[in-house]
Amino acid sequence: MLSCDKERLQDKIFAFSKFGDTGKGGITRLCLSEPDLQARAEFCKRMKALGADIVTDDMANIYATIKGSEDLPRIAMGSHTDSVIQGGNYDGILGVLTAMEAVETIVTEKVPHRHPITVMIWTNEEGARFDPAMMSSGVITGKFDKTKMLTSKDKEGITFGEALDASGYKGDEKNRMNPQDYRAFVELHIEQGPVLEAEKMDIGVVEGVVGMVNYEFEFIGQAGHAGSVPQKMRQDALLAASEAIQYLHSKLDKLDGKLVYTTGRINCSPNVHTIIPAHVKFTLDSRHQDPEVIKQVVQIIENIPRELAKCKVSYKQLWSRNTVAFNRKMVDFVEKNAKEYGLSYKRMYSGPGHDAQYVSDMMPTSFIFVPSIGGHSHCEIEKTPFDACWKGANVLLQTILDIDKE
Amino acid sequence: MLSCDKERLQDKIFAFSKFGDTGKGGITRLCLSEPDLQARAEFCKRMKALGADIVTDDMANIYATIKGSEDLPRIAMGSHTDSVIQGGNYDGILGVLTAMEAVETIVTEKVPHRHPITVMIWTNEEGARFDPAMMSSGVITGKFDKTKMLTSKDKEGITFGEALDASGYKGDEKNRMNPQDYRAFVELHIEQGPVLEAEKMDIGVVEGVVGMVNYEFEFIGQAGHAGSVPQKMRQDALLAASEAIQYLHSKLDKLDGKLVYTTGRINCSPNVHTIIPAHVKFTLDSRHQDPEVIKQVVQIIENIPRELAKCKVSYKQLWSRNTVAFNRKMVDFVEKNAKEYGLSYKRMYSGPGHDAQYVSDMMPTSFIFVPSIGGHSHCEIEKTPFDACWKGANVLLQTILDIDKE
Repeated sequence: MLSCDKERLQDKIFAFSKFGDTGKGGITRLCLSEPDLQARAEFCKRMKALGADIVTDDMANIYATIKGSEDLPRIAMGSHTDSVIQGGNYDGILGVLTAMEAVETIVTEKVPHRHPITVMIWTNEEGARFDPAMMSSGVITGKFDKTKMLTSKDKEGITFGEALDASGYKGDEKNRMNPQDYRAFVELHIEQGPVLEAEKMDIGVVEGVVGMVNYEFEFIGQAGHAGSVPQKMRQDALLAASEAIQYLHSKLDKLDGKLVYTTGRINCSPNVHTIIPAHVKFTLDSRHQDPEVIKQVVQIIENIPRELAKCKVSYKQLWSRNTVAFNRKMVDFVEKNAKEYGLSYKRMYSGPGHDAQYVSDMMPTSFIFVPSIGGHSHCEIEKTPFDACWKGANVLLQTILDIDKE
Repeated sequence: MLSCDKERLQDKIFAFSKFGDTGKGGITRLCLSEPDLQARAEFCKRMKALGADIVTDDMANIYATIKGSEDLPRIAMGSHTDSVIQGGNYDGILGVLTAMEAVETIVTEKVPHRHPITVMIWTNEEGARFDPAMMSSGVITGKFDKTKMLTSKDKEGITFGEALDASGYKGDEKNRMNPQDYRAFVELHIEQGPVLEAEKMDIGVVEGVVGMVNYEFEFIGQAGHAGSVPQKMRQDALLAASEAIQYLHSKLDKLDGKLVYTTGRINCSPNVHTIIPAHVKFTLDSRHQDPEVIKQVVQIIENIPRELAKCKVSYKQLWSRNTVAFNRKMVDFVEKNAKEYGLSYKRMYSGPGHDAQYVSDMMPTSFIFVPSIGGHSHCEIEKTPFDACWKGANVLLQTILDIDKE
């Protein structure tokens, strides 16, 4: 079977790991920062060398396209080059590098294909420099208001609009990906979780992105000196919050085993060891592919006692998203190709969000996971073995060629 | 019975509330700041007008002494003029103002007394500008190393030693309070708790200051993406910490009813709503007058499971202090005088620490509480009704005169 060049892919991973190298195994490559511009330049240089035609749109998304033998819509693949602060060498960039490697294989092996094939870089997927995440795919699919996005500021007060103007990658709105000119989109990404590694699977056949709700709980107590307020007269907001965390986890534990829920952020005020906590907030993030299960989660949240440890309990929804299902036929291509390469695989949903979930509103989309060692991501020790990267690249390559044959 | 002048005491409270007035009902009068120096100057002016002789020691503690009819050791009373940021008009300063009012009553009513009587201001009781609290009483009773204290810095990088030099109140070490030249010390203070108000008591007859232990608990989990790590594979440090808070409170709830315990400070890392908490710390402060009960607290702490929610649990003691009992005879004087003025009173221990607990190592000491409305302190709404202040001043006056007669 046709396959990508493992050495060549490994070289790409090494080469791009230099852009934003922290010197401690990872990278800091914030969106449109100098290291990100270096990575984009290297991408353009390498894609031009393969004969690709390169354009950018008004959000600085890059489209590098090799011609097909017929006048047909394009088949696109890709991901993002930006990272979080002290991130790793795989999140996002591996989806770009495997797509580059797939195209390099097609070009060097002279693999016939009818459709033009496009490798893409999405701008500001992480949202680590400019809030929100998945900004550009959100804008071109109408999820976010572009005017508002342009005013999003980084820590130094630079707006996304200013960074865009200065980047040299701001192009024409008419170059945006659209359903008329594109046949399909495929994204490869690291799992960012421990499941594939734990179950010794090579490939995650991603059926969709799970729906989620994110709530914030608030507990109002009464501050007081740790030494002078008898226990029975206290309204301790942290005691109330810890009861609520236990309550929520014990109830949610009983729902479907695929449900995930995280109480990730807690803030306590005044947060002094000698003062009874007066005010505590924490967040609950919960995700599941089945909206019915999410409804059960919301019911549990809404049934939380209005008073705990004599403190007032309230909650509000910060945001939510619906489950996104990828195109069934294209998901089946991924599964078929994992099988044909003799790889172990698992059909699963993605917990984290990705640009592909917005793209799937516009065109048939599918998604490939490769394992993350220890489930680590958004950190310098993030790692996917080269062999696993190469297996993923092969499945990506063959999926593109399957779509081309359709 | 002899009594202080309520109007005159009220005038003192108003006058001193101007030094550091926040305009929102409270004061910010950090140790040796401009407002604190204004309060000290006003104190010296008023005490001189009463015929007092004023000296300061090397820690800028102020001693304003009126002569007695015999050559005897002094009887001292007083408290502190410094406050926390956005503190109230009663914590500390009321102990100075009631002592001033007691002396003014003795002087204007020509009350005979054998001993010299000294009104004191202790420097840096709050520790809000220069760590630690009760610094000067700690130094002159040998609890703290003076050289080290002089290097304690405020937020602007100014050392306590520099502030001392610039204050104009640095005097001679030989002026320090000592057991040879002093017969006794009495301090009046607001309760800083809700007990006296709730039980409709005028006076707290303070028998001592409770012993305490302060521990920090630590929980080591594993960070991970909120969407991609199945619940069963998680090590959630905040879930572990909330189990520990529940565990500690439920066990400590079963000990003596006078025990107080506070989980006041919690820090979670990375503290992001979409990341499983990797690392959480919280503090436990616990206080009781009986060392045997504190031992039971420590046993509960030491028996905490070494693993909770699959996270590693550890703890360490940050500090502790032993229970201090005030002089029984002098405590009885306070009780007798509350009775003789027809006041309601309660024998109790102080939860918070005060300068008097260090002084009690050197000489017979007692302590008087007046009620705090709502138990509020260290905040702008801190309040003790004028009538309650006046009742406290009368008990203070009569206790000094009782000691004088001994």
